[in-house]
Amino acid sequence: MKRKDALALDRVDPFAKKRKLFKLPKGKIYLDGNSLGVLPKASIVRVKHLVEVEWGQDLITSWNKHGWWNLPQVIGDKIAKLVGAPPNSVAVADTISVNLFKVLSAAVALRPQRSVVLSDSGNFPSDLYVAQGLSQFMDGKVELKIVEPKQIINAISDEVAVVMLTETDYRSAYRHDMQAITAKAHCVGALIIWDLAHSAGAVPIDLMACDADFAVGCTYKYLNGGPGAQAFLFVNPRLQPSAVPALVGWWGHVKPFAFSTDFEPADGVRRFQSGTQGMINMVALDAAMDAWKGVSMERLYSKAVKQCAMFTELVEQQCGEFGVTLYGNRDFHQRGSHVCLQHEQAYAVIQALISRGVVGDFRTPNLMRFGFTPLYTSYVDVFDAAQHLYEVLSKRLWNRKKFSNKQSVT
Amino acid sequence: MKRKDALALDRVDPFAKKRKLFKLPKGKIYLDGNSLGVLPKASIVRVKHLVEVEWGQDLITSWNKHGWWNLPQVIGDKIAKLVGAPPNSVAVADTISVNLFKVLSAAVALRPQRSVVLSDSGNFPSDLYVAQGLSQFMDGKVELKIVEPKQIINAISDEVAVVMLTETDYRSAYRHDMQAITAKAHCVGALIIWDLAHSAGAVPIDLMACDADFAVGCTYKYLNGGPGAQAFLFVNPRLQPSAVPALVGWWGHVKPFAFSTDFEPADGVRRFQSGTQGMINMVALDAAMDAWKGVSMERLYSKAVKQCAMFTELVEQQCGEFGVTLYGNRDFHQRGSHVCLQHEQAYAVIQALISRGVVGDFRTPNLMRFGFTPLYTSYVDVFDAAQHLYEVLSKRLWNRKKFSNKQSVT
Repeated sequence: MKRKDALALDRVDPFAKKRKLFKLPKGKIYLDGNSLGVLPKASIVRVKHLVEVEWGQDLITSWNKHGWWNLPQVIGDKIAKLVGAPPNSVAVADTISVNLFKVLSAAVALRPQRSVVLSDSGNFPSDLYVAQGLSQFMDGKVELKIVEPKQIINAISDEVAVVMLTETDYRSAYRHDMQAITAKAHCVGALIIWDLAHSAGAVPIDLMACDADFAVGCTYKYLNGGPGAQAFLFVNPRLQPSAVPALVGWWGHVKPFAFSTDFEPADGVRRFQSGTQGMINMVALDAAMDAWKGVSMERLYSKAVKQCAMFTELVEQQCGEFGVTLYGNRDFHQRGSHVCLQHEQAYAVIQALISRGVVGDFRTPNLMRFGFTPLYTSYVDVFDAAQHLYEVLSKRLWNRKKFSNKQSVT
Repeated sequence: MKRKDALALDRVDPFAKKRKLFKLPKGKIYLDGNSLGVLPKASIVRVKHLVEVEWGQDLITSWNKHGWWNLPQVIGDKIAKLVGAPPNSVAVADTISVNLFKVLSAAVALRPQRSVVLSDSGNFPSDLYVAQGLSQFMDGKVELKIVEPKQIINAISDEVAVVMLTETDYRSAYRHDMQAITAKAHCVGALIIWDLAHSAGAVPIDLMACDADFAVGCTYKYLNGGPGAQAFLFVNPRLQPSAVPALVGWWGHVKPFAFSTDFEPADGVRRFQSGTQGMINMVALDAAMDAWKGVSMERLYSKAVKQCAMFTELVEQQCGEFGVTLYGNRDFHQRGSHVCLQHEQAYAVIQALISRGVVGDFRTPNLMRFGFTPLYTSYVDVFDAAQHLYEVLSKRLWNRKKFSNKQSVT
């Protein structure tokens, strides 16, 4: 493949016009939208209005006047469309860890006779920590059991209360078979929680088609909601009347403004709200959701698959001799929207790339991760990134003091 | 008192210059800073920089480059100074309800043989809901017991695991005696959690002087952090090695970037962090904290006491005959920074006041609440607000269809 071939692909790319909705960082090829999505132009305007008019001028009246109060449900319904969830089943609130705690506590309470929370070693560590924290608090009444990703389906036994998995692995990009695993869980009477952190806005997801029980997900990666924007959670309508989280609060009360001293859960997913949500991040996210109008997740994913395959192929052709190898699944139709490469000097290589304006990230111990976000990643970005990697590796540009090892941040 | 007397007080007010740090709403007398504080000018600049430069341009590198990662601790240390807490004992994160859940779960785990969480009927309902949610999840192993505020001290028995109180009542403005109640709790071996939602930035608080175990608090009221800005929590250094919340996550791991599958809590208050925090609200709050430089809480509180007394006196002199009475404690040295009035048409009266630009709020069933935030509330604001209330009541301006009853929002 030549650079002109990449440019030709961009010219016929149906998503090319979406790229104009974002303020892309100047002089950079940004391949870290799987960690922090770029800034939508609409969010700049919306945040300014929130700060200067809604907060600055209208103040407390904005809770009604500017719809702050309902925003978690309004945005939830927008996200629902991207993950195959019906209206009133998705709420935006808090962080993934907090939401996971809420749905996990609700799920284990629905299976009081069972003692196992099952997950896999590819899950994002924070999800495992949430289960361990809950387990310790419950004096081991439930225990977290961790198996290898591909052993999950066979490990689902009738001791399992809850299966808790991340659909797309944050390193290997391996995608679980949601349909088969959910069916197996239900077959033995277990519940399932899907973490869609690396899936929502990246791959086609249909929560209702597989009849998932609960889900959580991130809005600051592929959904471009801004740094640390609130996470989302999904509760299957079938479970909404019976599921109650251990962590509740007045936003989840059936009549919050009655200020009753007794908690009575609201109907629907709203009972999974607890405290007052940060509105500046919330409106940035709401504006970011505009970019998803008219987007077919199937078509977007097929662009991602093409970009992941193209990047991997270019890297393997050009850089194989320099000790770089693909990490994870090679099947480009069973993986997420990022590519992870192994190299013994991964941290220094990533730092050298960043210094040239190609932004990916490092994951311990020896992984370089490159996210493809086809709403705004062009084919020529992919081509050029591979060329930069070739330059860095072939000229050993990573071998400089300034690229020495230190911590990085998701 | 005449209007010119109020103006004279403003001329010698040592806090008058602080008012210039805020964008006050045009044409309004804003007496709801106890619900949502006004917009600091510094926050406008800081949010714009966050959005356009840190998010828009520097993206993922901002976690290190712009100090996002450490901001919860940096702001925590600033808040610590206002509430008598040492460095590294306060963290900014999540919401009050989530933080209360964290510290309450840690506290009950430290008192496994005890079965009572004690609170009072004046506590903010969401706090009670948090305890009820935890109690239900624990199958009643701990039970919430609610008594009248003034009966708290006598209700602290050796069955009590945790005393959980809001220092300043959100309606009556009654302030608990932190020193005496904390001492009594410790005397019987119970732990204590103080909610400082209506105290931090309003009244002098000294967490270490009374040796409080845990505290939580709000940043979007008196601290002006912006709508729904993250809450804070305090853990006494004495308990930091032993207290572990039920809700944990990767931000509370001793080595978050090791991505280990086993949770190992960080030292200090950081273990009470869980997930990634929203940075737009966080920087707005950080900038808002600038206004507190050089502020003596004792002197600020004495201005608040003066304003509360002045407002109450003016209202009682002028409006007593129209059925309005003070709700709560009359002792202006044992109360918070707001005044609550009772009137049978409270909702309509508040609406009529808001339509004239005097913003207070309604609390069910018949309460009107007026917050005095002496960083930016002037004495003439207080005088004029009382005059508007007189106008509304004496001319029965509230008696109009457009002021009919409906829900309001904190």
